[in-house]
Amino acid sequence: MVDCLQALYHLRGPPSEATSRAQELCVEQTLEYPPELASPHVRERCLARVLELRELEPDCQELRVGFPVEIVLDRHGGVDHAQLLNVLFGNISLKPGVRLVDFVLPPHILGAFPGPRLGANGLFERAGIERGPLVGTALKPMGQSPRELASLAGECARGGIDLLKDDHGICDQPFSPFLERVTRVVEALREASVHTGRRCLYFPNVTAMGSLLEERVEQAAQAGADGLVLSVGLTGLHALLALACAGVVNSRPPLPILAHPALVGAFTVHPDHGVAPGLLLGGLYRLLGADGVIFPSHIGRFGTPTADCRDIMLQGSRALPGIRTLLPVPAGGMRLQDLPEIVEFYGERSLLLIGGDLHRHGDLRSTCARFVEQARRAGAPAES
Amino acid sequence: MVDCLQALYHLRGPPSEATSRAQELCVEQTLEYPPELASPHVRERCLARVLELRELEPDCQELRVGFPVEIVLDRHGGVDHAQLLNVLFGNISLKPGVRLVDFVLPPHILGAFPGPRLGANGLFERAGIERGPLVGTALKPMGQSPRELASLAGECARGGIDLLKDDHGICDQPFSPFLERVTRVVEALREASVHTGRRCLYFPNVTAMGSLLEERVEQAAQAGADGLVLSVGLTGLHALLALACAGVVNSRPPLPILAHPALVGAFTVHPDHGVAPGLLLGGLYRLLGADGVIFPSHIGRFGTPTADCRDIMLQGSRALPGIRTLLPVPAGGMRLQDLPEIVEFYGERSLLLIGGDLHRHGDLRSTCARFVEQARRAGAPAES
Repeated sequence: MVDCLQALYHLRGPPSEATSRAQELCVEQTLEYPPELASPHVRERCLARVLELRELEPDCQELRVGFPVEIVLDRHGGVDHAQLLNVLFGNISLKPGVRLVDFVLPPHILGAFPGPRLGANGLFERAGIERGPLVGTALKPMGQSPRELASLAGECARGGIDLLKDDHGICDQPFSPFLERVTRVVEALREASVHTGRRCLYFPNVTAMGSLLEERVEQAAQAGADGLVLSVGLTGLHALLALACAGVVNSRPPLPILAHPALVGAFTVHPDHGVAPGLLLGGLYRLLGADGVIFPSHIGRFGTPTADCRDIMLQGSRALPGIRTLLPVPAGGMRLQDLPEIVEFYGERSLLLIGGDLHRHGDLRSTCARFVEQARRAGAPAES
Repeated sequence: MVDCLQALYHLRGPPSEATSRAQELCVEQTLEYPPELASPHVRERCLARVLELRELEPDCQELRVGFPVEIVLDRHGGVDHAQLLNVLFGNISLKPGVRLVDFVLPPHILGAFPGPRLGANGLFERAGIERGPLVGTALKPMGQSPRELASLAGECARGGIDLLKDDHGICDQPFSPFLERVTRVVEALREASVHTGRRCLYFPNVTAMGSLLEERVEQAAQAGADGLVLSVGLTGLHALLALACAGVVNSRPPLPILAHPALVGAFTVHPDHGVAPGLLLGGLYRLLGADGVIFPSHIGRFGTPTADCRDIMLQGSRALPGIRTLLPVPAGGMRLQDLPEIVEFYGERSLLLIGGDLHRHGDLRSTCARFVEQARRAGAPAES
């Protein structure tokens, strides 16, 4: 099996059961049928194989599985993205104590993934910034009118913020209609840019299901937004891929996508089970076309394990021929006072998102200016 | 807050932290902003409230929260389905030890959900069966050609199976192109029905992402399939809602949807965290338009807790004005010998799905006939 798709799992449980659980996984994820009843041809063609099984720590085994690539292809030889995910973790997700940690695609099928349209470099370019980190904030809290949010946006932009996003709970509520909000915020940012001579990018939240998603994406483009926030956990990966592969509409090029992690914790939080956040947010989101990914930082109110944050960074930036790197966007209760530590960890090729804490220090505009100044200073190379 | 959306959570952790965690959840899921910095108007309008907090068992508290309905509406007063999910479990999913167990919608917004087009009763009607349980099986294993799968389909239909589905790992692979497979299977089933005088319904697997999903749905309808299998965990809920709300295309009415649970275990398996399977598979899938839901039975190779299976049944059938009931489809390694126990538990308004075990007893056609006969006998009312 030279041309195989490899996946890495952690199996939580007694070592004595590991071998049979590994075999079980191979069957469950491919044939889903008693192998002894299948024809030798079908077994050879489809059945996954254990490539390696070793103890990682007490009661935790690392399992490497090889899957025949053919079973995740479509009839034209392209990758069937849903089937890839199914083969990696479909049914086996229904058994406890299995965590999908990584996968490696054969290089020749990487071209079947869109990857980021802009990615980290492209977003830095759009922001007009050479050396970061970029600084961003969210329009919040919900419950305010488009006029109030636009006024906040103007203050942030005048303070020098690079990227503004809607708080992910701000949608199209009666008190904050989507199109009106986006139009007013874009207008406020244009006014601000006359004063600052710089651009502040605006990414409204288009997360929605069914026909509403398409409608909001179109409205965002029409109103002059610079990108989109999509909570991929809420809508599902189909929506991400569809947006990432969308073509030019009404002569407007498609907008870059910032993925938000709402609901994703249901997959990732329990260390014994589910999907490792690095793989999901850093690896899969990148392959399926996100340009940047927001995730709860290890510093902040979510207490994400540091290793998880590092994995998201690594998966988002590891070398994949033809696939741009993802912009990491740590967020979730970070505070201005944490900036040196944050920047030391995430580096200058990131976008730091601070929300509520910017509102705790009096005048919003000058707090934003402080945020920008401190972040950039922390990101600058030490003088030698 | 008379007109509120209520949600029920289980918080795993020491009782001493429960009150602050409950308050934290209310803020995280709505304002996501320091409440003391928000205006009284915004707090009143948007902030969720703890309605009840009580000890359920040691280190597990039951929390009932009320959310203002307005925050999950769109500007026309309809429900924003993604935002509903976001408010229920978006960010809080990123903190450990929180499980979303149930929610109750104010009755007047139920109309914003499509619900099943056919549901349990409609699927019984399509199958031409008055008293069940319905019996179904999957075309498997993968790796066979359309011709081979069609031949299996013919055998199952002649054995009297009510509903055939593709194994969820059979997609559009080079060895089994979708359109050719569906066309051949439909043909084989038509031939069989000439002999049996009965109809066997066929639900091919249309699970795919991006433009492929639409293509397969169209091909399925065109080739004469009776319904669709969609692995909602793989594609996301957006895809389910979009299919459920699809209108007539090329004068063909939309097909009923059987949801498959692949990947869903990442959400549901850990009892301390995530989303309760009853709520997700029985409640949400039903509201968003699934007609039936496949889930791993408590009897079978997944070892699903019995209470979870019962919850799926209850959520799928509880009285919701204007929303049809969901057809429960227990599956996952059930065996013929388990039928009496299975039918006793799931009752006759269900579809029993047995896959691999039907291939263990020699001739497939006669094994299917035994399956039908034994299931219906078990479902018949005891003679009095």
